[in-house]
Amino acid sequence: MTSTPTAPSSTAVLSRRDVVLLGLAAGTTVLAGVLHYATHTAVLNFVVAGAALAVLASLVGRAVDALGERLGAAATGILQSALGNLPELFVIAFSLKAGLDDVVKSTIVGSILANVLLILGMAFVVGGLKHGKQSFSAEQGRSLGLMLVLAVLILSIPALTSSLHTPAEGHERTLSVLVSVVMLALFALSLPATLRRTTDPAAHVASPIARDLDTAAAVREAEQHGEWPLGLAIGLLALAGLGAAFVSEWFVDALQPAIETLGINQTFAGLVIVAIAGNAVENVVGIQLMARNQADYAVQVVMQSPVQVALTIAPLVTLAAPLLGAASFTLVLSPMLVAALVMSALVAVLVINDGESTWFEGCALIALYCAIAAAFWWG
Amino acid sequence: MTSTPTAPSSTAVLSRRDVVLLGLAAGTTVLAGVLHYATHTAVLNFVVAGAALAVLASLVGRAVDALGERLGAAATGILQSALGNLPELFVIAFSLKAGLDDVVKSTIVGSILANVLLILGMAFVVGGLKHGKQSFSAEQGRSLGLMLVLAVLILSIPALTSSLHTPAEGHERTLSVLVSVVMLALFALSLPATLRRTTDPAAHVASPIARDLDTAAAVREAEQHGEWPLGLAIGLLALAGLGAAFVSEWFVDALQPAIETLGINQTFAGLVIVAIAGNAVENVVGIQLMARNQADYAVQVVMQSPVQVALTIAPLVTLAAPLLGAASFTLVLSPMLVAALVMSALVAVLVINDGESTWFEGCALIALYCAIAAAFWWG
Amino acid sequence: MTSTPTAPSSTAVLSRRDVVLLGLAAGTTVLAGVLHYATHTAVLNFVVAGAALAVLASLVGRAVDALGERLGAAATGILQSALGNLPELFVIAFSLKAGLDDVVKSTIVGSILANVLLILGMAFVVGGLKHGKQSFSAEQGRSLGLMLVLAVLILSIPALTSSLHTPAEGHERTLSVLVSVVMLALFALSLPATLRRTTDPAAHVASPIARDLDTAAAVREAEQHGEWPLGLAIGLLALAGLGAAFVSEWFVDALQPAIETLGINQTFAGLVIVAIAGNAVENVVGIQLMARNQADYAVQVVMQSPVQVALTIAPLVTLAAPLLGAASFTLVLSPMLVAALVMSALVAVLVINDGESTWFEGCALIALYCAIAAAFWWG
Repeated sequence: MTSTPTAPSSTAVLSRRDVVLLGLAAGTTVLAGVLHYATHTAVLNFVVAGAALAVLASLVGRAVDALGERLGAAATGILQSALGNLPELFVIAFSLKAGLDDVVKSTIVGSILANVLLILGMAFVVGGLKHGKQSFSAEQGRSLGLMLVLAVLILSIPALTSSLHTPAEGHERTLSVLVSVVMLALFALSLPATLRRTTDPAAHVASPIARDLDTAAAVREAEQHGEWPLGLAIGLLALAGLGAAFVSEWFVDALQPAIETLGINQTFAGLVIVAIAGNAVENVVGIQLMARNQADYAVQVVMQSPVQVALTIAPLVTLAAPLLGAASFTLVLSPMLVAALVMSALVAVLVINDGESTWFEGCALIALYCAIAAAFWWG
Repeated sequence: MTSTPTAPSSTAVLSRRDVVLLGLAAGTTVLAGVLHYATHTAVLNFVVAGAALAVLASLVGRAVDALGERLGAAATGILQSALGNLPELFVIAFSLKAGLDDVVKSTIVGSILANVLLILGMAFVVGGLKHGKQSFSAEQGRSLGLMLVLAVLILSIPALTSSLHTPAEGHERTLSVLVSVVMLALFALSLPATLRRTTDPAAHVASPIARDLDTAAAVREAEQHGEWPLGLAIGLLALAGLGAAFVSEWFVDALQPAIETLGINQTFAGLVIVAIAGNAVENVVGIQLMARNQADYAVQVVMQSPVQVALTIAPLVTLAAPLLGAASFTLVLSPMLVAALVMSALVAVLVINDGESTWFEGCALIALYCAIAAAFWWG
Repeated sequence: MTSTPTAPSSTAVLSRRDVVLLGLAAGTTVLAGVLHYATHTAVLNFVVAGAALAVLASLVGRAVDALGERLGAAATGILQSALGNLPELFVIAFSLKAGLDDVVKSTIVGSILANVLLILGMAFVVGGLKHGKQSFSAEQGRSLGLMLVLAVLILSIPALTSSLHTPAEGHERTLSVLVSVVMLALFALSLPATLRRTTDPAAHVASPIARDLDTAAAVREAEQHGEWPLGLAIGLLALAGLGAAFVSEWFVDALQPAIETLGINQTFAGLVIVAIAGNAVENVVGIQLMARNQADYAVQVVMQSPVQVALTIAPLVTLAAPLLGAASFTLVLSPMLVAALVMSALVAVLVINDGESTWFEGCALIALYCAIAAAFWWG
């Protein structure tokens, strides 16, 4: 069962965890920068930049939480929606600029797969081994599941017209733009529910897009934040965001040489490696929350990310592509990517709709993830 | 929550709404006829004939309800199943006779899409904005959802054998006939449940195919019928049916010139334009019922139509095709149409299975409809 | 509702039914052997061998149940998982050795289809006509449904990479082996839950893979076993297993000539004929249990078989293929087989998730089975 989060015991500005995080962030970022400017060791650069990215993503996440807590309830949800996937957005933007279209598409899909199958699966396994069968709000789960399925289906329409050779072939750019507008409109329409939920926790309005007050508090407690004053929160957010921008560029720069050295293809790199690095935050937080038997919040944190990626990041990237010199970018995913997306959305809905989780269900999710990843090993 | 429908307050033979409807029907029908015989203004003919068709469909619907009320409970359900989609059946038959195979197939699919996504979505939006979260019988919803999924899957089998190039290629006509027989058999097997439900409202037998007593009463009240004597009901039904037959022919006659003038392709015309015109009744009634917070009846009225189209109209058209000079007509839909069908059935099941609806869910359904329609803009 | 099974009234070692079964088994086996060695009447050999196989499968099933009852609770579940599909495994192995790859793949798929659609459908029809609407544990149903969907999706991954022409083409053998390992790992991970459930019936651990104590007892009662001593159980199991091995070889030997004589193609033979023969046990037991209003056990017995086939038989066949001289065997199913699998898994989940069954739902399942089988009539 889910317990109400209590006030954090620490009253310091920076908790011990915060200090460790800041240190890691600074360290890895500096190291990634040194490697980028000074050397050409492809794989090392790639790994260090990836690690720095994961840490910076965690820092961005905490700064956003702290900021939201200071600015008020409504801001928490909106900010988390806007900035929660910031590092991933940078990586995708830089990849697009570098002309790595395959990486962009497989990162978008991989991010959804990683959350829905791998991270949710690991969270279920950890929580199940520790607490046996866990329960969570089936109603909120259903809402998230429906949003995910809709986002996945709409996202797959350009790919379907292309691979099924309908007369829409040749117009994929236009169709991708249309589809992007529809998805952004859906996202915008979901914000009122978000606002209502974050300002009035008693209003049982299931918000599929953004964290609500209780979830944010639970996350904060699980991660043992300190109490950050407003200035510190804004400052660290800006620094972390700037750092993420730089490190993303170094990461994308090192990506192609690294995967050539390792003999991995672009699609697998985006689908598995980049996606997991970019979602390290949800991974850690989700497992922490399940381990603390707060399955409700865990499911929300893990499931909101792929919905946001599908409804905001994919459309924004499509619409902004001409600005990044990739005016012909379309949302035409390869058929295998579409199949992977649909499979994972289907399984997610089945697993979440009953409001219960067992460690075995978690194993099953991870098994499907491994099988899908294996299918992309060769491209 | 759903309230029990009360007795209609009006005791007149023709209520004010009835008079308006009869006037509109007569007017549009005459205008459509004049335009058909006197002019060649393609688009105008098409639009007026379409409007006349929608109004006549509404009149047929009311006459059937009134007739059922006079003849008894069992008749209500059977008649509505048989005649509820009459105008659409005429359009499809005339299109088939005119050799417009693509229009026939996309009208069948479009009718299902329009009800399951667009009309249900609009009803959810209207009802949700007015009454907040609405509830309806999850059990009946699940029954309807299962029937829809089964009908869609069986309907897609000929298309799958064709597009997947199985050895069944070349035998699509035979397979389509087999599949049609199976679907009509299923429909026939559902009639006992219909009869039991319409004669004994206490029997909680979920009838997926036809309206039950309470739903019929709710519809009548929402539409504010007068009390039609048996003779009037039969007479108006015959007149409306005859009118629908004529207007359907004028509609199909004007279809090809109109879409050529407007630059729309056959598939989009059938999928969106013809389908919406033919389902204007469910549209209006469904929204009325949701606005009156009678979500139970609304969901039934809206969801029964696509199930009937799939289980009766598609098979009847296939079996009767040789009589209309189209002996080679098959149920081989284009792969994109099958994808659209499967998507909408899936989403409908997810939306209905929880027995609740919000205005946002309605927006999501409409968003998917728009994205799918956009994919067919070019053909 | 489900009633608790009572102690069997017969206290004889061999009940009347047991004697009939043993007689039939011996008779058909001997006849099949005589026909195999003495004649070349293809169709007759095939039919008699098929009948012998079905009877021997039933005998193996009862011997396993009796053995489990003697050896203890934990053994019941494990033994049933391991040996329940033994005759089918023999047929598949001999077909593989004879180079009938298409038969192997379509038998695997057909076994799943037969259970999920035809047998479950017939059970629902019989039970529904006799007892009206029946209820069963939705929770266990959901667990089984999820396992089935996962197994089907993982099983379809090699086929998808091949038919979608991804770069994995050419590596199907490796991918099939990987996927087989993943599925066997999942199966192994499910055994703890099986053990816990069979040793402690109070532990409401839904075991998707093997029968629990109560189910085994219900089956025994429905089939009216006698009380077999340990020695008799082991002896009859060994004899039946040996007989099944021989008859399987005769069955496969007669298969190709028979289907050529009858003009049936390999795929249809495997999908429908072999699959139904190999699952005659589940058929009989499932219908018996539904007729006795024990829907809970019926659903478990019928649904566990396809899950086991997907998670154990398909992988074992793939891994052992080199030993049978078919080192290039892959799990690449034809696209139409994959479509059939996915359809049936989807419908099964919808039908089972609400925890209720009606005779009409049963008709719908059978209708889908007929439509799918019709699609494979030509290959």
